[in-house]
Amino acid sequence: MQKLFNPQSVALIGATDRAGSVGLGIAENLWLGKKQRKIFFVNPNSKKVLKQKTYASIAEIKEKIDLAIIAVPAKFVKQVSLECCLAGAGCCIIISSGFAETGLAGETLQKEISEIFAKNNIPLVGPNCLGVINPHKKLNASFAPDTPQPGKIAFLSQSGALIDSVIDYSLLENLGFSLMVSYGNEAGLGLNDFLAMAGEDKNTKVIAVYLEEIKNGQDFIKIASEIAKQKPIIILKGGKTPAGNKAAQSHTAAMAGEAKIYSAAFQKAGVLEVETIEDLFLVSRTRADLVPKRRGLPLSGSGWAILTNGGAVGVITADWCSRLGVKLAEIALQNNPWDVLGDATSEIYQTALLALLKQPDISGVIFCQTLQTMTDPWQNAKIIIKTQKQYPQKPILPLFLGGVKTKKAVDLLKQAGLGCFQEPRDAVMIASLLLTSDVNSR
Amino acid sequence: MQKLFNPQSVALIGATDRAGSVGLGIAENLWLGKKQRKIFFVNPNSKKVLKQKTYASIAEIKEKIDLAIIAVPAKFVKQVSLECCLAGAGCCIIISSGFAETGLAGETLQKEISEIFAKNNIPLVGPNCLGVINPHKKLNASFAPDTPQPGKIAFLSQSGALIDSVIDYSLLENLGFSLMVSYGNEAGLGLNDFLAMAGEDKNTKVIAVYLEEIKNGQDFIKIASEIAKQKPIIILKGGKTPAGNKAAQSHTAAMAGEAKIYSAAFQKAGVLEVETIEDLFLVSRTRADLVPKRRGLPLSGSGWAILTNGGAVGVITADWCSRLGVKLAEIALQNNPWDVLGDATSEIYQTALLALLKQPDISGVIFCQTLQTMTDPWQNAKIIIKTQKQYPQKPILPLFLGGVKTKKAVDLLKQAGLGCFQEPRDAVMIASLLLTSDVNSR
Repeated sequence: MQKLFNPQSVALIGATDRAGSVGLGIAENLWLGKKQRKIFFVNPNSKKVLKQKTYASIAEIKEKIDLAIIAVPAKFVKQVSLECCLAGAGCCIIISSGFAETGLAGETLQKEISEIFAKNNIPLVGPNCLGVINPHKKLNASFAPDTPQPGKIAFLSQSGALIDSVIDYSLLENLGFSLMVSYGNEAGLGLNDFLAMAGEDKNTKVIAVYLEEIKNGQDFIKIASEIAKQKPIIILKGGKTPAGNKAAQSHTAAMAGEAKIYSAAFQKAGVLEVETIEDLFLVSRTRADLVPKRRGLPLSGSGWAILTNGGAVGVITADWCSRLGVKLAEIALQNNPWDVLGDATSEIYQTALLALLKQPDISGVIFCQTLQTMTDPWQNAKIIIKTQKQYPQKPILPLFLGGVKTKKAVDLLKQAGLGCFQEPRDAVMIASLLLTSDVNSR
Repeated sequence: MQKLFNPQSVALIGATDRAGSVGLGIAENLWLGKKQRKIFFVNPNSKKVLKQKTYASIAEIKEKIDLAIIAVPAKFVKQVSLECCLAGAGCCIIISSGFAETGLAGETLQKEISEIFAKNNIPLVGPNCLGVINPHKKLNASFAPDTPQPGKIAFLSQSGALIDSVIDYSLLENLGFSLMVSYGNEAGLGLNDFLAMAGEDKNTKVIAVYLEEIKNGQDFIKIASEIAKQKPIIILKGGKTPAGNKAAQSHTAAMAGEAKIYSAAFQKAGVLEVETIEDLFLVSRTRADLVPKRRGLPLSGSGWAILTNGGAVGVITADWCSRLGVKLAEIALQNNPWDVLGDATSEIYQTALLALLKQPDISGVIFCQTLQTMTDPWQNAKIIIKTQKQYPQKPILPLFLGGVKTKKAVDLLKQAGLGCFQEPRDAVMIASLLLTSDVNSR
């Protein structure tokens, strides 16, 4: 794992200066980590790449290579793979496509290459993948157009394109990652191996996965069950319907399995399944921040409280609690939702919030705010942050409806690692998952 | 309707300079339309409000008042109502709360006031409401903290607080409104009346509604059915579950009805029901822009095409098509989703897009973009805008996954009135609703 995610030396076979090429993309991304490790570019047809000396082959490099990255046309991959094995590379990523995903000939070639690495006992990632990224070690061994910020979420994806877009999204949303792995055709290492690695990685607090098929279901359940006891695993499964399944077959070599079998396996393993890309990262982000705080809270018999300055938002939020199975607590001398009314000042909110958190059988509060004349989003945000510190085991989920005047407060809450929701359904979904995580970890 | 949404003269009874008060909020909002109409402030206890002369009562004003707004404590409302009737006000909004929503005494008082206006044949909005807004005529007769931009969506809401937050949201999202009505306790005019007004309003292309109860179901079905033939009506119903229902009862005077009866009524009336606040405005906005373009397209036997440069996004989008009942067309010589692969240039996208739109039995295209090395979001956006003009009857729904590097192109698409989605589910939901609208309008 060290050699793959924090190599001391990397060789890129297929490095080039050609604009818009995969070889240049990887070279530039690798170069970001030039202070962390030695980087070697291999290309027999050019003398320099990114103004650095190139090598005609990996054999020419006189140093031990921890990680070899192969990005040459499919027809050359077998030969280059043999050279990497001969050179004793620590592990290898094959970026190149043109294998099992293209038909029978590609499948045969992939099998031969897979056997070469297996025989030499060298871990292989790919082929037909984007590569791997470890922002904590400034390793971007991929051709993604950007590098994400370091964070707590490991994202394992059968799709490289999805990783590209998620990185672009994460830079706008200030979302950080611990690891990113595009695992492609799984000729060597597969999803189960990467799950195990993310499980061991100390930076990773939550594991997010996009997959279309699982190759070894029994192993998956075994490995995922173990990890899910410590770290939440959130999965989006593509190809769950006839139309999606048909699409998945032409996209990867995978024969997408039956949705019900998958969902049953996920449930058995204690994995949370989501249905949208937005939910995958909403849930991952919130759980990365909130779950550690939830440790040790006795939940039996307890429920959530809704605190609001707008009746309708209380109603809609209560509706979602009913739908998603989030139990509402009985609040002493108040209704639940507790409506502090439209003229509620931050002081009123604070008093109510403290009263709720002090009540032993209330496990968390959904703090709803609409933007009325007396509403002070900034003060409300500060109160939430302060009060959450006093009651670290009782999650406060801020639900701030608004836009322009709400933005600064929303950003403050996000920076404080508390998250902030704009849609009642999202806040309640997180409340329901926090309950689930508690059930899982018992 | 003219007198309510575009009055030539307005009197505010309860105008004040007191910071943070409802009376000041309305006064300031009204003042924004000082070039459009005459504005009179009534307050027997102060000589000036916003540096303008005040009147001791509405009787003192020597001009005919189109719209009287009452914002005084509940106990004074009856007396002031009588004065408004005597002065022959064209219509009246009672902002004040403290009526049917507070219990039996308030209900009795509300009934008396309601009868006063009925006897004098003066239309009444409220009590217990935020007011009304018509951005096209610079009328903000409410205490909302801001004024929205003019646009095509009428928003009718039982909740005033929701309107406040929606305005703040709309300013960030560049969303415009034709009318906004907080209809409160419906002592005079009710939802059905406002639906009829929005139906007649030429600026309104789509009607979005938040409600907890409908007071006259038969009338609702009759009125909504007629309007829905011309303009889409999108409704979010609060209080659909036991918990939400209980919350609704303590929030308004409403006894929230059974969710199934409501859903059946909505379906009978051709009204689209959504389940989240986000969907209410996502659907409203997209339909305001797209529905007019859809006129005249024969849909029988036709289906949608998915065009993508990322296999996984094609798979996820196809999954959602299966789930939401969006039929996928057979594409000549290609799969559907049609995967133009990760190195697709804008030229490749354009060629494929034109081929799809030319195929007669393809009714629309979901244009999926992931942000890979060769992807040019800006060029792709321009191609979509240009091509949509060539084929105005075939909607192209852009689904651009990303963030920082995608933002400029997303904004361009939104400015062009095409909308842009970041989540496959959202794009497919809109595709499904465009189908529904076609079915409705036949």
